[in-house]
Amino acid sequence: MKTYFDCIPCAVRQVLDAVRMITDDEAVQEKVLRESLGMWQKMDLRQSPPEMAQKIHRFLREVTGVADPYYEVKQRYNRLALDMVPELRKTMERSAWPFETAVRLAIAGNIIDFGVNSTIKESHVGETVRQSLTDPLDTQAVQQLQEAVAQADDILYLGDNAGEIVFDRLLIEQMPREKVTFVVRGGPILNDVLVEDAEMVGLTGMVEVIDNGFDAPGTILGRCSDEFRRRFDEADLVIAKGQGNFESLSEPGREVFFLLRPKCAVLARHLGCDIGRLVVVQTGGELSPSRVK
Amino acid sequence: MKTYFDCIPCAVRQVLDAVRMITDDEAVQEKVLRESLGMWQKMDLRQSPPEMAQKIHRFLREVTGVADPYYEVKQRYNRLALDMVPELRKTMERSAWPFETAVRLAIAGNIIDFGVNSTIKESHVGETVRQSLTDPLDTQAVQQLQEAVAQADDILYLGDNAGEIVFDRLLIEQMPREKVTFVVRGGPILNDVLVEDAEMVGLTGMVEVIDNGFDAPGTILGRCSDEFRRRFDEADLVIAKGQGNFESLSEPGREVFFLLRPKCAVLARHLGCDIGRLVVVQTGGELSPSRVK
Repeated sequence: MKTYFDCIPCAVRQVLDAVRMITDDEAVQEKVLRESLGMWQKMDLRQSPPEMAQKIHRFLREVTGVADPYYEVKQRYNRLALDMVPELRKTMERSAWPFETAVRLAIAGNIIDFGVNSTIKESHVGETVRQSLTDPLDTQAVQQLQEAVAQADDILYLGDNAGEIVFDRLLIEQMPREKVTFVVRGGPILNDVLVEDAEMVGLTGMVEVIDNGFDAPGTILGRCSDEFRRRFDEADLVIAKGQGNFESLSEPGREVFFLLRPKCAVLARHLGCDIGRLVVVQTGGELSPSRVK
Repeated sequence: MKTYFDCIPCAVRQVLDAVRMITDDEAVQEKVLRESLGMWQKMDLRQSPPEMAQKIHRFLREVTGVADPYYEVKQRYNRLALDMVPELRKTMERSAWPFETAVRLAIAGNIIDFGVNSTIKESHVGETVRQSLTDPLDTQAVQQLQEAVAQADDILYLGDNAGEIVFDRLLIEQMPREKVTFVVRGGPILNDVLVEDAEMVGLTGMVEVIDNGFDAPGTILGRCSDEFRRRFDEADLVIAKGQGNFESLSEPGREVFFLLRPKCAVLARHLGCDIGRLVVVQTGGELSPSRVK
């Protein structure tokens, strides 16, 4: 997905939120703000928003000298989500269609995103989980996904955020584990998942975990490692979580099932649905619906 | 008031709203957006937000070749407000303290501002007027203002927006007309008042009307005409309407009574009150309250 004009004021606000989270030093805040304005002035709008975010956040880490500004946030939300697991398992057990419930929960977990919405509160997570159980969902798309999982021998699951990864684990438990490879980012970026998060939530002991070789808050194929690209091309089924993966992979050249909540008006309009909607959408394949049902 | 970091993402969104109102040509929209990002990158944050807005909107008018992009908007809101006058007069007549009611209405009219909030709907105006009659208001400050009006021989009333100017007229009718001079902007900027608006709403036939000599959405003394500055220095009483006048004049070197509604979190925080609050505040004088009561 290209960068829309409306993404730019939003991105300026995001970088301000991010630098304030890292430092109270107003001189540093101003330096980062000014530099990012200059970067946006020159940016190629055919790039997706995660490509620009990668450049800005790499600069932010260099200027502040903080290698992983969201480390504490990620740990906190992993713990928060892990604490919810016993109740989430009960919800799954009571469910008539556990796979569909797991999909709902995995999408609900996508609320934990410090890119689009840096003001997320911990209390939002429980509320979002409850709502997700009854929110509208394209069950036909869920059915297609479940069939694709059953038929695939090699499933690549592209993770998105820390915290959210616990919800991903519940969905992956509904799949043949030996067929699943979970993909994390290649380096710290926002609160996106790294290998250490997969370890913390017990995914490394359950499925293969690889990183994609690049530190964007999405999957920019041209910048990912050769090994990841090979896996991406060869997988029978790719499942991608979250707005950043959608924005960077929405014209992937292959079928991808996206599970996400659009968190801004731009993406919601692009998808033809409301903000916060539970979205299961397949793109790049023969079906390739351009609008969310 | 200086420009806060938070003003910048808001200002980027404002210029995007403004250029979209003027043209559907995406190439022009992109040119204006990029140029404004470059201007903000280099801006002196000690300047007030209206100083930057003046530069950006002058550029916008040059690029689009539209001398007064908000001409139709101004005409429409002048008419809308003029249509409300019979009912507003009835409200005044029923009032136990007409001056205070007129102050409330004049502040309510400040909702018609296409700078901070370009998404204003016509239906908001009536609702805001109704609310303003019962919203909290510092009546002691209103009393001080009324006494200052009674004592002054030379009152300078700095207008803000078209539409709003009709409400200003109702307040000016509560003053000795021969003592009042109404001030408009020196050239088209957003939906701010020009001499033609004062003519349209019948102010020119009622009081002296002058312009300040500069096309900023506020009163930047250093850029205003010598004649205006002399009048500003010599007036017994200066009343200034709206956020732009406050932002540019909040350290005026003389007493100024401001009547406004803060329309953004930055100004509300600066004033120590909520967004949308009815504010009557005197600055620059001996009393010079730094916080809204």
